[in-house]
Amino acid sequence: METKAYDIAMVGLGVMGQNLARNMARQGWHVAAYNRKEDMPAGFAAVAEAEGIGVTEDLAVLAASLRRPRRLMLMVRAGGPVDAVLEGLLPYLEPGDVVIDGGNSFYQDTIRREQALDRRGVAFLGVGVSGGEEGALWGPSLMAGGSREGWESAAPILRSIAARAEGEPCCGWVGPGGAGHFVKAVHNGIEYGDMQLICEAYWVLRQAGMEEDAIARVMEEWNWGALDSYLMEITAAILRRKDPETGLPLVRVILDTAEQKGTGMWTSREALQMGVPAPTVAEAVFARCLSAMKAERQAASRTLAGPGWKSGPDPMERVEALRQALYASKICAYAQGFALLREASHQYGWKLRPGEIAMLWRGGCIIRARFLREIKAAYDENPDLENLMLAPAFAQALEQAQEGWRQSVAQGILDGVPMPCMASALAYYDGYRSETLPAHLLQAQRDCFGAHTYRRVDREGSFHTAWGL
Amino acid sequence: METKAYDIAMVGLGVMGQNLARNMARQGWHVAAYNRKEDMPAGFAAVAEAEGIGVTEDLAVLAASLRRPRRLMLMVRAGGPVDAVLEGLLPYLEPGDVVIDGGNSFYQDTIRREQALDRRGVAFLGVGVSGGEEGALWGPSLMAGGSREGWESAAPILRSIAARAEGEPCCGWVGPGGAGHFVKAVHNGIEYGDMQLICEAYWVLRQAGMEEDAIARVMEEWNWGALDSYLMEITAAILRRKDPETGLPLVRVILDTAEQKGTGMWTSREALQMGVPAPTVAEAVFARCLSAMKAERQAASRTLAGPGWKSGPDPMERVEALRQALYASKICAYAQGFALLREASHQYGWKLRPGEIAMLWRGGCIIRARFLREIKAAYDENPDLENLMLAPAFAQALEQAQEGWRQSVAQGILDGVPMPCMASALAYYDGYRSETLPAHLLQAQRDCFGAHTYRRVDREGSFHTAWGL
Repeated sequence: METKAYDIAMVGLGVMGQNLARNMARQGWHVAAYNRKEDMPAGFAAVAEAEGIGVTEDLAVLAASLRRPRRLMLMVRAGGPVDAVLEGLLPYLEPGDVVIDGGNSFYQDTIRREQALDRRGVAFLGVGVSGGEEGALWGPSLMAGGSREGWESAAPILRSIAARAEGEPCCGWVGPGGAGHFVKAVHNGIEYGDMQLICEAYWVLRQAGMEEDAIARVMEEWNWGALDSYLMEITAAILRRKDPETGLPLVRVILDTAEQKGTGMWTSREALQMGVPAPTVAEAVFARCLSAMKAERQAASRTLAGPGWKSGPDPMERVEALRQALYASKICAYAQGFALLREASHQYGWKLRPGEIAMLWRGGCIIRARFLREIKAAYDENPDLENLMLAPAFAQALEQAQEGWRQSVAQGILDGVPMPCMASALAYYDGYRSETLPAHLLQAQRDCFGAHTYRRVDREGSFHTAWGL
Repeated sequence: METKAYDIAMVGLGVMGQNLARNMARQGWHVAAYNRKEDMPAGFAAVAEAEGIGVTEDLAVLAASLRRPRRLMLMVRAGGPVDAVLEGLLPYLEPGDVVIDGGNSFYQDTIRREQALDRRGVAFLGVGVSGGEEGALWGPSLMAGGSREGWESAAPILRSIAARAEGEPCCGWVGPGGAGHFVKAVHNGIEYGDMQLICEAYWVLRQAGMEEDAIARVMEEWNWGALDSYLMEITAAILRRKDPETGLPLVRVILDTAEQKGTGMWTSREALQMGVPAPTVAEAVFARCLSAMKAERQAASRTLAGPGWKSGPDPMERVEALRQALYASKICAYAQGFALLREASHQYGWKLRPGEIAMLWRGGCIIRARFLREIKAAYDENPDLENLMLAPAFAQALEQAQEGWRQSVAQGILDGVPMPCMASALAYYDGYRSETLPAHLLQAQRDCFGAHTYRRVDREGSFHTAWGL
């Protein structure tokens, strides 16, 4: 490969790396691509030649091929592989070079790597990439964090390949350190919630006897309103799809064991660690875990009794209440995600701007939705909003939706249909709007058995009662 | 202090350390006690002299004072302080000595410390101690894990100071490595669930207008049946207690902001990491976090609307349904804790015996309850029980309780009373007993946007649909 001829290197040619490289090439950038010899994808050479992408299996050649300061993007598996690649690259890097980690790295690893590279004068960016394979090829959402100088250098390329929403690229620098990867993790946590909530709405209708095509019609209708989103759109299409072999709706032949790659789990763990309630995200993660226990559930279904199907209203009569439940629960899931961003921003000094983050998610990513414009508007109105639910538009939406929401969840509970995320979202709403919670009893219990003391409502100080119990 | 004269050393003389030392002395052991000079508790010297406990501020003196092989118990703050004390002690320790960490250490730290000390020939035990200050003085529940040889050496002392239930000490070796501290963390996770569930039952009745004394009477009655437990007993007594200053029920003047020390949070985080659904424990942790956000909740209570109190049945008519809800939810919380023990035992090769662990919790600890005998019986009947809910006695109890459980939670949802733990326990029950869950739709979504593939119900293999969306 010619030296000092390429604008950027793509390191790691899995499908995501290949597609991002092709996206860059399509935007006119000269892309050098690297993969280890052992797992160089067989078919990529021809594609690369057709699209003007240089390919090498030699890091020294790769480093020499780049214009200075160098820009390199890593698309390798999160964890050890990222450190291994960085170690391999380091001897060839010079001060001013920029390394971009586009994988799903854990944000604390990103913080550590940025600090380590900074000591060598190398800028490091941790960039959350959302949108899957198609997004990578045609326009992902990109959430960049880390070195501000690195961002200035990488921005022209990253912005050019990103999805666009209303003319603006869905790509931005959200903050220093691990901010980009943290924002991506929260995005994924919200995505887990969004997906599980849609599954719960679908399942209530399905359990009430509605056929997949009819449910698809319901979702298509919902997709015209406040629930307008990519996930709603593909769900309707999925429900209409037939299995070519059996002629049945395809979802009926798909095994109900959800998998996960860990970002929703991380987000829930971080919420617990930071003390930020995110129960709807955690319930979505646990719902996936429970779904994976298929054999246990099959055995349990023969042992544990349910209420049987109660003669509830006609499923069509439940649709509007369920729409309200889905919308209100969705607001709560996003409120939890944004509360987590707020706390992380505070703890790490990232100065995250929640409205700008919502803008990054309008296109390219899995949770893209009309809804995000309303979130942006809420933060424009009040950048210090403590919780999304408190924004006037959302507070009103929740008030209007609550009757259907409560009816839907109560009915699900009476019918024995599990709705962990909708129920937890409602408990979050009711807990958050409670001036008083029963935690005074809990504090009394703690003081009684552990002398942990309590505070009083009527004056400052720490108090202990000699319970004598 | 005389050399080679003492049976055991207590390192760290906070209230827990003092009380455990006094408990040992009362049992006839010669106890040497150590604390750093900086924070040696002022009043302890007199107590120690009266009870024959030797006190020193010098680790060398302490080490010399002990019979060989030495036995030392640490009661210092979890985390760095444990490592600091171990480092200070190491120069004085000899092969065969035993160090017991009785603090709330994170089990993976315990695994690391046991391995490090094992290389020096020193045995290390991580022991979960439950029962608070009073328990430490009069008989705690002790869950020991780590070196089996260390256990043989320490057991006579530990067993002598433990609580007794039906004549047996609530003290045992549960497994190697971090098993003791893990079991203690799960105990605390269950305790978080138990406490929050009682709070929810109390709050429903209180919101329905029942006075504290009347609720205490209800709980006293419940305490005669399947809900018989220490927590139920103290809750009733707490609710009867009046504030001497105002004459009001004391709980009315206690601030409703719950605190936590982190073990419930750890347990929830581990459950997420291990992929074991423990939503009721996690909801209990999040409920504490939410309660701590008092100022936000106060503001939110003025912005976010509730349904207002619906004219439900007379509170007395709701009592029996609520009792069923509490009992069934409690079974679920324990089922989640024991499922987590099962998975950890599997992952770490600990060979935990769940029935024996239930026996350790019958006395001394916060969750002591009649209920634990039934758990023991369930595991005696089937030591390989996959989930506690599947034991015939519990499956039957859940079936009998489910009507009141469903009514109570549905009513709470319609009334706007947050019941996050009862609702999540019910969703766990309904999810676990579902042969089919809507995760097939979720897998289709994942395949659609990320080509993650899915499995089919009718044959083996991985499948991908060209969705073209």
